[in-house]
Amino acid sequence: MSSLPGPGSLAGWTRADFPVLRPQHTRWHDDDTYGHVNNVVYYAYFDTAVNGYLIEASGTDIRSLPAIGIVAETACRYLRPVSFPDRLDVGLAVARLGRSSVTYHLAVLRDGENEPAAVGRFVHVYVDRASRRPVEVPDVLRRVLEPLIVPPR
Amino acid sequence: MSSLPGPGSLAGWTRADFPVLRPQHTRWHDDDTYGHVNNVVYYAYFDTAVNGYLIEASGTDIRSLPAIGIVAETACRYLRPVSFPDRLDVGLAVARLGRSSVTYHLAVLRDGENEPAAVGRFVHVYVDRASRRPVEVPDVLRRVLEPLIVPPR
Amino acid sequence: MSSLPGPGSLAGWTRADFPVLRPQHTRWHDDDTYGHVNNVVYYAYFDTAVNGYLIEASGTDIRSLPAIGIVAETACRYLRPVSFPDRLDVGLAVARLGRSSVTYHLAVLRDGENEPAAVGRFVHVYVDRASRRPVEVPDVLRRVLEPLIVPPR
Amino acid sequence: MSSLPGPGSLAGWTRADFPVLRPQHTRWHDDDTYGHVNNVVYYAYFDTAVNGYLIEASGTDIRSLPAIGIVAETACRYLRPVSFPDRLDVGLAVARLGRSSVTYHLAVLRDGENEPAAVGRFVHVYVDRASRRPVEVPDVLRRVLEPLIVPPR
Repeated sequence: MSSLPGPGSLAGWTRADFPVLRPQHTRWHDDDTYGHVNNVVYYAYFDTAVNGYLIEASGTDIRSLPAIGIVAETACRYLRPVSFPDRLDVGLAVARLGRSSVTYHLAVLRDGENEPAAVGRFVHVYVDRASRRPVEVPDVLRRVLEPLIVPPR
Repeated sequence: MSSLPGPGSLAGWTRADFPVLRPQHTRWHDDDTYGHVNNVVYYAYFDTAVNGYLIEASGTDIRSLPAIGIVAETACRYLRPVSFPDRLDVGLAVARLGRSSVTYHLAVLRDGENEPAAVGRFVHVYVDRASRRPVEVPDVLRRVLEPLIVPPR
Repeated sequence: MSSLPGPGSLAGWTRADFPVLRPQHTRWHDDDTYGHVNNVVYYAYFDTAVNGYLIEASGTDIRSLPAIGIVAETACRYLRPVSFPDRLDVGLAVARLGRSSVTYHLAVLRDGENEPAAVGRFVHVYVDRASRRPVEVPDVLRRVLEPLIVPPR
Repeated sequence: MSSLPGPGSLAGWTRADFPVLRPQHTRWHDDDTYGHVNNVVYYAYFDTAVNGYLIEASGTDIRSLPAIGIVAETACRYLRPVSFPDRLDVGLAVARLGRSSVTYHLAVLRDGENEPAAVGRFVHVYVDRASRRPVEVPDVLRRVLEPLIVPPR
C-alpha cells in the first residue's frame, strides 16, 4: 500500500478543467457550529456527483449491476469556505481509468466562481457483488468514463 | 500547494500504535444502500474524535477560544467494511505539531480488532476567529497534543 | 403541553395546495440499507426548505437577526418511497402564523408528481438569541410568511 | 388517514418511564450553525435506538428477515437543547403493538438527567420485502417488543 498523490496535484485547476459539472444544492445543516459547510459534507457532494453521473450518463441503475464500485480512497483539500444557501457545482474528471479501478479528480465550486472552494480525489474499485473480488470496470460505465479522462498536468 | 503524503503512510499501523482511542457508536443510517458504512461517514468519526478529544482533554470549550481550528485537508483509505451496529474505536495520533497547524493520523477500528478498518489524515490550521488569519495553536490545546505525537515510521 | 394535530390533517393535499415549491436534489447517501431515502432525511428537506425560503424571500440572513427560530416540534407521514437520484420539490405552506410561532405544512413531492411522497409539520418559535425567551416573529419574516397562509381545510 | 396523537401525549414522562435506555454518543456535526443539535438529528437517534434494540435483543439481523419494518410516521417535540459532546440515552417504550405495526414512544435524555430533552413517536409497519404488502410483525421481534409495552396514561 504505497502513498498516493493527494489532491494537492490539483493545484491551479479551475472550472474549465472539469469535463462535467454537476449542480448541488446545499442544505441548512450542511453548515456546522462555525457557520460554514462542515468538512465531512464535501464528501457527500463528491459521492453524489460520481454516482449521479454514472447512473444518468449510462442510463443504468448501477446498484443492479453484478459489479459494484466500492470506495478505496478519498481525499479533500479545503481552499475557501462555502455556506448554506450557496448553490454549488461539483466538477468531475477521470485522472486514471484502470482495469478494475477509477480515480476521479473532483472540485466543489460556488455557482459563478471559477476557482474551486475545495478539490478532491475519489477512487472506486469494482468488485463482484457477492465475492467482493476485483473485476473489470463494467463496459456500460467505461463508455461514459472515457470522455472524462484528463491528461496529467 | 504541494502534494502531501496520503494515508498510505499509515500502512501496517495497528490499534497499539494510537495513543488515544475514542469509542464511537455506529448509527442505523451510517450504512448506505450497499449495507455498509458509507465512505462519507468515516470523516464524521474522525471529526468527532479530534474535536471530542480536544474538548475533553483540555477541559476547554474550543468553540469559545479566540483561535479556531479550520480543516485544511482530510484523507481516508478504506481497508475493510464496517456496518451498523458495530461498535468502533477511533485511534488518534499527532503526526506533526506545527506552529499553527496540527496533522493527525487516524484509524477506525472495530471493537476488539487490532487491524484498522480504515486509516486517515486530518489537518487543522488555527486561525483567528474574526480575521481568519493563521495564528499559533493555543497553548491549552498544545499541552494535550504533545503527548499524542508519534515518531515518523 | 396538549397533543397537537399531526400531519394526518394534510390528507388529500396535492402539489397545487402549496403556495411555494422548493427544488431539492437527493444525495447518494440519502438512501439507507433498504435502498430508499431514510426517514430521517425528509426532515433535512423540510429544514432546508423553510430556512432557504426565509433567507431568499426576505433577502435577510436570518442567522444575524436578534430573534432566531428554534424548532419546537416536527412530524412526518411517509406515503410512498423516494430514492436517489430523484429530484424533489418541497411544498411549503403556513398553517398558522402566531405572535411568536409559525406552523408550517410541508410536503415532499417527486418531480412531476402531484401526490406527495410525504407530508409534514414544522413549528418554529422565535426567541431572543441571548435570553432564549419568546419574542415576536420578526417583521421582515412575517411579510414573507403572510402570503403562504392557507385556510384550514 | 386520520390525525394521530402527537408526542404531546408524552407530557410528564421521565427517564424511569422507559423500559429500555440506549446510550448514544453525539457527534461534532450533530450541532448546527446555532450551536445545538439540529432538529433532524434527533430522528437519527430514534431510528438507531429502535433498530439497534431490535437487532440486539432479538439476536437477529432484521435486514435479512422476509418482513421489513418501514417507517410510516415519526414526530418529535423539542423541550431543551443538547450539544456535542453530550452523552445521551434514548428511552424506548412500545405504546401499541398491533398485528402489522408497532408504535414507539421515545425520548432523548442527557446523561444523568431525568427530564427528556425531547420526546417522540415512531411507527413501523411490517411489509413483505418483495411485495411491500403489510404482514404480521415477525414473532422473533414480537417477543422482544412485548416487554416494552407501557400502559396508556
